[in-house]
Amino acid sequence: MQLLFKGITTPAGFKATGVSAGIKKDNKLDIALLYSEKPCTCAGVFTTNVVKGHSLVLAREYIKKGRCQVIFINSGNANACVGNEGYSDAVKITELVADKLGIPSFSVITGSTGVIGFRLPMDKIESGITEACQHLSSDGGDLAAKAIMTTDTFPKELSVKIMINDKEVIVSGMAKGSGMIQPNMATMISVLTTDAVISSSLLKKTLKYAVNKTFNKISVDGDTSVCDKTVILANGMSECKPIKEDSIEYEQFKEALLVVCTELSKMIARDGEGATKLIEVNVINGRTQKDVSLACKAIANSPLVKTAFFGEDANWGRLLTAAGYSGANFDPSMTTISLGDLVLFNKGTALKFNEDIAKEILSKKDIVVTVDFGDGSFNDTVWTCDFSFDYIKINAHYRS
Amino acid sequence: MQLLFKGITTPAGFKATGVSAGIKKDNKLDIALLYSEKPCTCAGVFTTNVVKGHSLVLAREYIKKGRCQVIFINSGNANACVGNEGYSDAVKITELVADKLGIPSFSVITGSTGVIGFRLPMDKIESGITEACQHLSSDGGDLAAKAIMTTDTFPKELSVKIMINDKEVIVSGMAKGSGMIQPNMATMISVLTTDAVISSSLLKKTLKYAVNKTFNKISVDGDTSVCDKTVILANGMSECKPIKEDSIEYEQFKEALLVVCTELSKMIARDGEGATKLIEVNVINGRTQKDVSLACKAIANSPLVKTAFFGEDANWGRLLTAAGYSGANFDPSMTTISLGDLVLFNKGTALKFNEDIAKEILSKKDIVVTVDFGDGSFNDTVWTCDFSFDYIKINAHYRS
Repeated sequence: MQLLFKGITTPAGFKATGVSAGIKKDNKLDIALLYSEKPCTCAGVFTTNVVKGHSLVLAREYIKKGRCQVIFINSGNANACVGNEGYSDAVKITELVADKLGIPSFSVITGSTGVIGFRLPMDKIESGITEACQHLSSDGGDLAAKAIMTTDTFPKELSVKIMINDKEVIVSGMAKGSGMIQPNMATMISVLTTDAVISSSLLKKTLKYAVNKTFNKISVDGDTSVCDKTVILANGMSECKPIKEDSIEYEQFKEALLVVCTELSKMIARDGEGATKLIEVNVINGRTQKDVSLACKAIANSPLVKTAFFGEDANWGRLLTAAGYSGANFDPSMTTISLGDLVLFNKGTALKFNEDIAKEILSKKDIVVTVDFGDGSFNDTVWTCDFSFDYIKINAHYRS
Repeated sequence: MQLLFKGITTPAGFKATGVSAGIKKDNKLDIALLYSEKPCTCAGVFTTNVVKGHSLVLAREYIKKGRCQVIFINSGNANACVGNEGYSDAVKITELVADKLGIPSFSVITGSTGVIGFRLPMDKIESGITEACQHLSSDGGDLAAKAIMTTDTFPKELSVKIMINDKEVIVSGMAKGSGMIQPNMATMISVLTTDAVISSSLLKKTLKYAVNKTFNKISVDGDTSVCDKTVILANGMSECKPIKEDSIEYEQFKEALLVVCTELSKMIARDGEGATKLIEVNVINGRTQKDVSLACKAIANSPLVKTAFFGEDANWGRLLTAAGYSGANFDPSMTTISLGDLVLFNKGTALKFNEDIAKEILSKKDIVVTVDFGDGSFNDTVWTCDFSFDYIKINAHYRS
């Protein structure tokens, strides 16, 4: 397996671009278009929020038809909560794109991210679509990754190359999402592409597996924003042997997808709004999977834990407290807490640890903390970020 | 019913004080002692956190004996997670106090709040107890309210006077707690006193009722810190007719207790760490109590909602999104969201509201928001605060 720092146009037959249609201010890129030369098998994972963006609702319908060829995503406006016109606008977008590219409109998957409650500026979007269709390019993955950003500070993309029966197969992805406490309002969208030959049903199963281990592990409430989604397209253009379940090839593909999703997830956590650090929270040796997952999420989500990391303060009491109220069953007197390799709390008792060593660990950009329940064999990991002044700054006036 | 802006020594027969024992820096008050001339009936509600402070564990044992006369609370150190010595230290405190005041040690209820993981400085505490016992006074309620503060910016106390069969009966309370996302690490302690004549069992029932409607409504996870507690003592010195269940007198007493706890709860929310505003979140006309409670708590707890209030931004989309991921069942197309009396979102559709009026409402210190599910008859209310730069500042270096 080989990691390539390239985006979604790396697999054979994919073209993309990003253009500025004027939805965002300051001529920032705000429309991303991805096109596959051949129709793709496809799968998607969508928000579980009761409230759903209109572009997402349509995407969920169309992806079920199993014949995608284009993904359209605009940033700067979530196309959510604007009434029936929001859905009509999404339909109109698919028709405009389909018309330009000579494909059926149901093969266009729509996505929108940004503020909610405002109609899409359809005139600007129509011009943007025209421009984007003219600029589709097999080098355009980077532009697309930039065009889906909202409060992100860097584009997020990655590819993995594997060999399946002497054929090069690429799995690529791009994501937007600026960390945060939990994927909240339209904060996370990911697009994955591959030239593997694989059915929509197997793609769906594999995507679900990968998302649960990665994008759902960067926060408490999982896929709960109104526009959150992850979509994968496979156009088969690597001409590899069709990937079937329970085969070595499938394990390779699954692993490749997992690596792409894991790295994109970490990029999102690292780019958390106002974040200065990536924090990996491990809860290990619990009695059940539920216990370690609850504790992991409560710790990763605690503003007190996150502010302590920002302050580079080895306040293990906050980790223990968060685990304590998480709903997890564990025995504090069997619990051990470590920062990197430094043990702070050992089986129920605070240790007099070396504050200088703690400070050194905490001053790094990447921090690993481990809460060991010492009472079972279940483990979980969540990625999060610290909580800084800039988080408040970014979010206090987001809408205005 | 008459409100009195006085503290826990307002009912007959209660004395208190606050002294500086040197547990906190800068000679701040850090030991509160409350004494009743007569033994009291009593009840308590304690944290549900799996991790429990040692002082709290002992208090929970002693309160069951139903004969309290003294409450000791220190701030600056939570006496939590230090191993068996923490429990022995709490026992020692009850013995020291009991010895000075000539009462049984099991009638002393202990509480500690502050950082966790450090042994109590028992020499300082011993001197502090000696001093406090010498200074007990029927005017000392204010000092006690100050001595239990940690990051609080103002002391929180209140009394209510009612008449029961021509006898004046007082219900008083003090609280500490600096708001926060959720009562987390040793953030909330409340002490209630009354000179009513009432049994421990009826006190317990009434306290539980009041706490569920008040202190448990200022945050998501309710009583979940390792030291959170609410204790009530009744010394009977008003010599009113004994209060029995299902009587008019009981309804009066219950209402008085509810008022004291409600006002203390609002004071805690208003004094939230870094808070600039008190926000009342109402979710109304839901299908079930569970639906409105889940939505209420998710909204009150959302950092995105709280930062928007700090920024005075009428970002109703964040309220809707939080309700959407809360687990509540509701239909967004029947939902209406108002800021004060200003409707922002009406039955599924964003309104073009007057931003100036919104700005004016948001610039106030007290804000009421209402999410109307329009689909049932269940209501809930939670009090919270906004989320500011100062929250980060206060919490980044709390331990150091």
